[in-house]
Amino acid sequence: MTQVFRIGIAGLGTVGASAVLMLDRRARSLSAGSGREVRVTAVSARDRARDRGFDIDRFTWFDDPVALAASPEIDCFIELIGGEKGTAKAAVEAALKAGKHVVTANKALLARHGSELAALAEAKGVSLQFEAAVAGGVPIVKTLREAMAGNAITRISGILNGTCNYILSRMEAEGLSFDVCLGEAQRLGYAEADPTFDIGGFDSAHKLAILTSLAFGAAVDADAIHVEGISAISPIDIRMAQELGYRIKLLGVAEATATGIEQRVHPTMVPLTSAIAQVMGVTNAVTIAADAVREITLIGPGAGGDATASAVVADIADIARGSGGMPFVLPVAQLRKAERAPMQLHHGGYYVRLTVNDRPGAAASIVGRFAEADISLESIVQHRSEDAATRDPTGRSGAPVPVVLITYATTEAAVRQAIDKVVGDGYVVETPQIIRIERE
Amino acid sequence: MTQVFRIGIAGLGTVGASAVLMLDRRARSLSAGSGREVRVTAVSARDRARDRGFDIDRFTWFDDPVALAASPEIDCFIELIGGEKGTAKAAVEAALKAGKHVVTANKALLARHGSELAALAEAKGVSLQFEAAVAGGVPIVKTLREAMAGNAITRISGILNGTCNYILSRMEAEGLSFDVCLGEAQRLGYAEADPTFDIGGFDSAHKLAILTSLAFGAAVDADAIHVEGISAISPIDIRMAQELGYRIKLLGVAEATATGIEQRVHPTMVPLTSAIAQVMGVTNAVTIAADAVREITLIGPGAGGDATASAVVADIADIARGSGGMPFVLPVAQLRKAERAPMQLHHGGYYVRLTVNDRPGAAASIVGRFAEADISLESIVQHRSEDAATRDPTGRSGAPVPVVLITYATTEAAVRQAIDKVVGDGYVVETPQIIRIERE
Repeated sequence: MTQVFRIGIAGLGTVGASAVLMLDRRARSLSAGSGREVRVTAVSARDRARDRGFDIDRFTWFDDPVALAASPEIDCFIELIGGEKGTAKAAVEAALKAGKHVVTANKALLARHGSELAALAEAKGVSLQFEAAVAGGVPIVKTLREAMAGNAITRISGILNGTCNYILSRMEAEGLSFDVCLGEAQRLGYAEADPTFDIGGFDSAHKLAILTSLAFGAAVDADAIHVEGISAISPIDIRMAQELGYRIKLLGVAEATATGIEQRVHPTMVPLTSAIAQVMGVTNAVTIAADAVREITLIGPGAGGDATASAVVADIADIARGSGGMPFVLPVAQLRKAERAPMQLHHGGYYVRLTVNDRPGAAASIVGRFAEADISLESIVQHRSEDAATRDPTGRSGAPVPVVLITYATTEAAVRQAIDKVVGDGYVVETPQIIRIERE
Repeated sequence: MTQVFRIGIAGLGTVGASAVLMLDRRARSLSAGSGREVRVTAVSARDRARDRGFDIDRFTWFDDPVALAASPEIDCFIELIGGEKGTAKAAVEAALKAGKHVVTANKALLARHGSELAALAEAKGVSLQFEAAVAGGVPIVKTLREAMAGNAITRISGILNGTCNYILSRMEAEGLSFDVCLGEAQRLGYAEADPTFDIGGFDSAHKLAILTSLAFGAAVDADAIHVEGISAISPIDIRMAQELGYRIKLLGVAEATATGIEQRVHPTMVPLTSAIAQVMGVTNAVTIAADAVREITLIGPGAGGDATASAVVADIADIARGSGGMPFVLPVAQLRKAERAPMQLHHGGYYVRLTVNDRPGAAASIVGRFAEADISLESIVQHRSEDAATRDPTGRSGAPVPVVLITYATTEAAVRQAIDKVVGDGYVVETPQIIRIERE
């Protein structure tokens, strides 16, 4: 163990620059806590000249991040380049192969190549840490990896994407449409110019894949995740949710079921009184259910330069202190290939909103189809708009009205079957909206 | 590093017995994660014969926990005896002196002798871990000690006592008195026969003292804490809180202020919409505010055999894996003696409930006294009970009525001064109720 723990950082965007400043600011306590000086010695970035609030000449400069990764001048390589392949992957591999510890914030890289990289770290006896890859400043990786050692985890669920949670929060607070709120998120820098990755649920899925691996001792498998985004959520769903005592969140859920591990990312109705329903704006939250602790929830900032850098620096502090541990808790050879629970077997409550031609008998027919599929209904709500009522006081014109059904726990297959029948009956005039309910 | 990591447990009550079973259940993953077998080899308890769900003959039995602590048969000593002195202290000291790692759930011991024991652990180069001492299964110690390495913490606040939170939750849910709910808590085993330690706020204070030390790099100082319990909370306060958009929680708060570290435990009004307000029943929650992460909140079970054992086993797993780290983050010599911020300088909002003889001019006079003390009022609420209104339709009889004031941020000194004046004016017929408000 050298007296100086030498850090090389590749990628000096918001997170990288914040990490450099944070390591400066916390130098004394980091060295007191680990017994050696923790110091950035080398960096690499696209643009050397950019002002980042510190003097870049203090560090050895590398044009090539892969060269930095393998350089004898560092003990620990920090990958903040991003992307699931290309330079980021090459640099992480180079660092591990050269026997350097690695800290990365790269969820895509881990979701795609986590097991492979973990095996490399294991073979070289070095650490591969990635707290910053999931839920930014929330220490969910550490909690799953270390604090749950005595537990068999049964379920993990969370708000893993701040952009989506911001959009859903704005839609509710101001009664605005999805498109308007997305535009607002883009204007404020919470959403990318191409927002597909966030609003389509793919970012949440990458993070969920990592959490699933940690929680269930399974090899990371991002392809096993059922993914739905939030772009189909309309203001009426937000309002109906509230009326029925729920709030809509984009949740990532991984659950041990009788048929395997069910991994899914989709809009979800959670009870208004639950802790997770209070999580508004860009904040993230993750709930772990396990045999011993029953349930614990962590809430905090899922993004932002300082919050993400906080996770990077915590990983560095752990490694500097000599805290070992496998990347995914168990040796890679012991990670199981998780049985994939098919979504058709998903068991839970459902919110179904049908836009129907309001002809006599429509509601009765719909309810009948759900009864045929052996689905019990908790609520049926049919509000005719004031507008429609004025235009058509007899209620016999057949103008489209929303009919909302809340089911008791049933299966995805049963709900899909009932809806197919209802659609076949010809009452429905828009694509049915289906939102799963999590009552726990 | 031996191939077997040998555990000795002193105290086989609910937590100890649960820990033994959990170490059995999790043996495979604990050994896979640490590279060596983690095995209980020796135990000590008051009663050897009691059925605890496992065969006690598997372990070497010690009548004397201090002898177990120092025994060459163990590498790590688990103290689950309890009490701030006597056997628990002697055993922990004996273990540390003999160069054993120590895991303890004993908050009283740490609150009183934390620095002294940490110094001993440091001198011997062994670990002293105590996740179970604060908030049971919630990994708040690990989070403060490790995950916040990049942060300067500004404030920590939490619901640290499940008994009090249970009582306050019941009072609200069912409109019952404090005494009835306390009785119910005792019947359900959530409160001791002598409940003073919990309801007086002292249990929360011990836990807060430990968190303060971890958060601020200060020596543990339980005597520096301003402590108030919940026994004076009445149903009218619970109702008024709700009417005004708040909920009453017993919070422990430690905050870096201009005059030092303010440490306090008292009933607190938190906004109904805050995450912490949703924490009901015996659940605990802790919020950390810090420069980089802004705010993170952890919620989970604060007590119970399995949840507490989960924290103990996580500590054992960390030590078995060789994860080092100082008990209080920094070497004991570097822990500062924190400047104690006097409560009179506390700055915040206040709820003041005065029971006054409702004579003409009473309200005006009260409001005047607050204005004299330069306190701005956010709300003034005076409900005459229906009963009083029936008996006294003119409102001139002077029957006692509650007057509730909500102040904007002011100082404790100003509020006390205004109330003293109001009391001096002779309108007030009961001890004024004062509850601090945390709006963040």
